[in-house]
Amino acid sequence: MQNFVFHNPTRILFGEGQIAAIGPEIPSGARVLITYGGGSVVKTGTLAEVKAALGDIPFLEFGGIEPNPTYETLMQAVELARREKVDFLLAVGGGSVIDGTKFIAAAIPFEGEPWDILAKHAPIARAVPFGSVLTLPATGSEMNAASVITRSATRDKLAFIDPSVFPRFSVLDPTKTYTLPPRQIANGVVDAFVHIAEQYLTYPADAKVQDRFAEGLMLTLIEEGPKALAEPENYAVRANLMWTATLALNGLIGAGVPQDWATHMVGHEITALHGLDHAQTLAVVLPAMLQVRRFDKRGKLLQYAGRVWGLREGDEDARIDAAIERTRDFFESLQVPTRLSGYGIGAEAIAPLVDQLERHGMTALGERQDVDLARSREVLELAL
Amino acid sequence: MQNFVFHNPTRILFGEGQIAAIGPEIPSGARVLITYGGGSVVKTGTLAEVKAALGDIPFLEFGGIEPNPTYETLMQAVELARREKVDFLLAVGGGSVIDGTKFIAAAIPFEGEPWDILAKHAPIARAVPFGSVLTLPATGSEMNAASVITRSATRDKLAFIDPSVFPRFSVLDPTKTYTLPPRQIANGVVDAFVHIAEQYLTYPADAKVQDRFAEGLMLTLIEEGPKALAEPENYAVRANLMWTATLALNGLIGAGVPQDWATHMVGHEITALHGLDHAQTLAVVLPAMLQVRRFDKRGKLLQYAGRVWGLREGDEDARIDAAIERTRDFFESLQVPTRLSGYGIGAEAIAPLVDQLERHGMTALGERQDVDLARSREVLELAL
Repeated sequence: MQNFVFHNPTRILFGEGQIAAIGPEIPSGARVLITYGGGSVVKTGTLAEVKAALGDIPFLEFGGIEPNPTYETLMQAVELARREKVDFLLAVGGGSVIDGTKFIAAAIPFEGEPWDILAKHAPIARAVPFGSVLTLPATGSEMNAASVITRSATRDKLAFIDPSVFPRFSVLDPTKTYTLPPRQIANGVVDAFVHIAEQYLTYPADAKVQDRFAEGLMLTLIEEGPKALAEPENYAVRANLMWTATLALNGLIGAGVPQDWATHMVGHEITALHGLDHAQTLAVVLPAMLQVRRFDKRGKLLQYAGRVWGLREGDEDARIDAAIERTRDFFESLQVPTRLSGYGIGAEAIAPLVDQLERHGMTALGERQDVDLARSREVLELAL
Repeated sequence: MQNFVFHNPTRILFGEGQIAAIGPEIPSGARVLITYGGGSVVKTGTLAEVKAALGDIPFLEFGGIEPNPTYETLMQAVELARREKVDFLLAVGGGSVIDGTKFIAAAIPFEGEPWDILAKHAPIARAVPFGSVLTLPATGSEMNAASVITRSATRDKLAFIDPSVFPRFSVLDPTKTYTLPPRQIANGVVDAFVHIAEQYLTYPADAKVQDRFAEGLMLTLIEEGPKALAEPENYAVRANLMWTATLALNGLIGAGVPQDWATHMVGHEITALHGLDHAQTLAVVLPAMLQVRRFDKRGKLLQYAGRVWGLREGDEDARIDAAIERTRDFFESLQVPTRLSGYGIGAEAIAPLVDQLERHGMTALGERQDVDLARSREVLELAL
């Protein structure tokens, strides 16, 4: 096991009805800015429920944070918050809204050009505290300190991580996911699955608990993902899905182990240039990435084949092939295509994607920093 | 899944050499009281290493906290801390030292008789902040807010839980466990295993992740426990054991599920009246407790048999019997006897133990509050 520091101070309020408990979680005297996305939280009544739970706490609203939240939109919220002297943010939505709110939280007190937080990893002295009400299990943003933001003007999609942007609290009410379209549920399952893969399918590090936890989360997604689509109002299934997605990226399974993230980095460029959903890009890239790097990942791929897919007999290479195919079939079974062609993207797209990776310095990805541009190209070619 | 609140703010510094990193974790200007046990941390040099890491930070020392820490001893530390205006505590040791330090932390600012914190669950307005340097993987006290204290005069062993006594940080350096006697390692494995059992072997609650995590921790203990005894300086093994014991009782696997704790409550009385090590009492009580309550725990016992012990074929009752026997054999393989007779305790001890349970109000234990004194007696009789 590698040395690590683990610290996750986010308070989780889990279960049906927990929105009603947010009042006492907000510092007394706070001026709150509620942030949300395209309006589904208005339609479903979740936003009204949140406002009711705030009681006498004064609040403003900022809607319109888009999927793959943009710097341009978020800076409007920053200006509003600065002008109105907001001192607590409350994100109501999915990972995009929460990611966007983290950026708003860090940008409000930031001196200088806030884009530098992303582009130059400029240090963050402090951030405005915030909480979240999660409506879409997927990204894990509700219990971590990471955020991914897109700049529309340049099609840059960049990340920052800072302990100051852990949510103070997050409400996870599984019933708030009942009205999600199937595509968003399927995307969430794929997103969480690939988060786990990025922290698990690397090389063995004698970290037995982290491995068992990662496998347990994957097994839960495999069991519950199809049920979440088939039975949208099955509370137990949605609860398991929601808690799994949170634990997939809250630092726990990644503590003390090597991490990959090459699939995410390549996927980000596909979203930036072609507008695919984040999870769609992961479903495309992961199987090809595992295939291209099967030699380096051999030990963990065999463990994955055995413990997650029950493939314990026969030729080792055949087991690895089968495990990668099962992964692909699982994503496809959720109606998430796993090839670029499934999204109408052909070979002509590869050179611009590789150029974009180069421009963003993504030239030494993966747990061994050996995924250079040539290997990324190979992955994209295999993903056609 | 049941509704839950999960919040664990303890910062974990894990790995060899992490003691050197504690300085910045202590608030500047703090007056520190280092607390420790019987002197093994003096002999091994761990205490000196901690002092060196404190650098210029002023500190006092209080040694002599015993296994099953006593109110009488701890109140001496409280008096010292009050007199010297200590405002940060640093526990160096195992679960007893950390549990004791939690009580000291809560008692220093407590107005009134601090024993009421235990005997009357008197509310704690605040506690002195503290950190820990763990030397014995077992109790999980390093990452939770629970504490068990014994009053020598009356042989009462009582617990309190309060969010104010989460450690601010805990250092987990696996090399600090190399010099532990085999009995303490074995006890630690049993203690952690039974902590998991108390949160897992109840009734099904559709909490798939919590179940998978609990099973993963048990499997790790089964794999690593014997190796920890056979190869005391195997870093990877000690690291896995240490992290497993912490995760066994940090709130994670117990969130959203029913919990039992009857084995602990009965075990506490055996320690109070007969002086057995805490883990020895758990090894004695758990197999008998599972056998007596096998009907109520049937679903989870079958799951345990299958997923933890690989017992998936044949008659269900035979599988349950086999799983309980495997549990007993596992403890015995670590040289921890699993019957009262193994500690020279006979049938004449049962009536006083049951009386003691009654005196402490332990008359409705377990996840269904249906373990009354008659069932506890039955458990003790089966454990002879």
